[in-house]
Amino acid sequence: MKNVYVIGVGLIGGSMALDIKALHSELIIFGIDTNEAHLEEAIQLKVIDSKATYSDLKQADLVILSIPVDTAVIELPKILDLVSDACLVFDVGSTKMDICKAVEKHPKRRNFLAAHPISGTEFSGPKAAIHNLYKNKTNIICEVEKTAFKLQEMALKLFIGIGMRIRYMNPVAHDKHIAYVSHLSHISSFMLGKTVIEKEKNERDIFDMAGSGFESTVRLAKSSPEMWTPIFKQNKANVVEILEEYIQNLTKFKEFMEADDFEEIYNEMKNINHIKDILNGIN
Amino acid sequence: MKNVYVIGVGLIGGSMALDIKALHSELIIFGIDTNEAHLEEAIQLKVIDSKATYSDLKQADLVILSIPVDTAVIELPKILDLVSDACLVFDVGSTKMDICKAVEKHPKRRNFLAAHPISGTEFSGPKAAIHNLYKNKTNIICEVEKTAFKLQEMALKLFIGIGMRIRYMNPVAHDKHIAYVSHLSHISSFMLGKTVIEKEKNERDIFDMAGSGFESTVRLAKSSPEMWTPIFKQNKANVVEILEEYIQNLTKFKEFMEADDFEEIYNEMKNINHIKDILNGIN
Repeated sequence: MKNVYVIGVGLIGGSMALDIKALHSELIIFGIDTNEAHLEEAIQLKVIDSKATYSDLKQADLVILSIPVDTAVIELPKILDLVSDACLVFDVGSTKMDICKAVEKHPKRRNFLAAHPISGTEFSGPKAAIHNLYKNKTNIICEVEKTAFKLQEMALKLFIGIGMRIRYMNPVAHDKHIAYVSHLSHISSFMLGKTVIEKEKNERDIFDMAGSGFESTVRLAKSSPEMWTPIFKQNKANVVEILEEYIQNLTKFKEFMEADDFEEIYNEMKNINHIKDILNGIN
Repeated sequence: MKNVYVIGVGLIGGSMALDIKALHSELIIFGIDTNEAHLEEAIQLKVIDSKATYSDLKQADLVILSIPVDTAVIELPKILDLVSDACLVFDVGSTKMDICKAVEKHPKRRNFLAAHPISGTEFSGPKAAIHNLYKNKTNIICEVEKTAFKLQEMALKLFIGIGMRIRYMNPVAHDKHIAYVSHLSHISSFMLGKTVIEKEKNERDIFDMAGSGFESTVRLAKSSPEMWTPIFKQNKANVVEILEEYIQNLTKFKEFMEADDFEEIYNEMKNINHIKDILNGIN
């Protein structure tokens, strides 16, 4: 392995580039991006060694596709058309059904590995790229059996090298579960931000009265709409279903309050406290 | 000032005791609590110097009332009955209307200061008490004009000493705004935890698939039901109102998704991103 191409030099792809380079300094990391300023920034920040274009992809040993999930499904078939037989291409998107379907019958399907490294921050762009973003985080790999043996092995070695634990799932299960534990959190946070901004005309007051609790709950509302809109679109059915359930639970809570049933309010919270034990393992 | 009595030796009162003692080592910190085990623990952890009872309160120079808001409104009048004319009593509760009303006509109203130091963690009990919990945090003081001049001054010095910035508000405005920026966050977090726990029968899967985003959004769902049930009860009208608004915003978001109006989904998130600028000041 010598030439690594990162398509989309933002938080996710950029952080992966940094870790891979730290591990294998002999590799050359090329960046491809529609945003020229991001490429320049990525070079300056040493996230990539130099910039490249699709016409260079025939020299690629590894391609990391880290662009929004709607463009990923369009670009992936083109990329597979261009790479050599020995090249591994993996994506890092937060939805897995559409991308797997997009290359289902592609002659180079075996060069592709569908991955979802579950990690990130609320920041974006090359300057958001950081070392060790993936350490001790989970990487969900879908349809592993459709990837060539040697490339499975290469990917596994790389992911373990940057500190990830691997889980295998089918794309349907992935998209359903990730709607629960990731996509819903983002919506709950965005809508919390919206509700408070609407109510508080005086922003100085929000700043002064909000404690760290509000800050942590609303943190995800800083996330990139460019990245998240296509995720919600691709995972619409699962997201709408879990959002429905969330709204129902909130409505029930409100009804208990309206009915002065604070014993039930207490019981609800007491039961949910059990989330402590579940979270104890995270991070 | 010599004798400080902390009634309720948990996260809030305990942390305040630690900071006050660090600042004024000559003070003796007494703890009063219905939970005998907490008192022993607080002594062991050096959160308090020794335990006491209400009958000792006549020697108090300062009383910090840090118990759940429903018992606070019952205990405060009794405490005021017991303390000397020179003693300052302040509470730290997350609601201010009911407690101000509870002592509105009390002959020792001028010994009381209604305070809400906006700080905390999701943990509780004496072992949750930490140094510097209040550093650079906001302390909302209500009806300051009803407290004796000398005691206003004493409180202010103390709060500034432990690093807090002071804001004055009336109890009605306090309870309304705090419902927006604090109480709603807790409910959104609790219900997020509930929704995900209900859906994910396999808890190991939650742990493996949940990233730091879920963890930060659901953090407040670890909070103490003993503390939060009475807060929601006392601030029912404001909480129900803002919860209603939150549910409406979530429902609208769901409807945009169902109608495939992802342009609107994008716009919503883009507008809410502005929360970044507001939060930049917090912490």
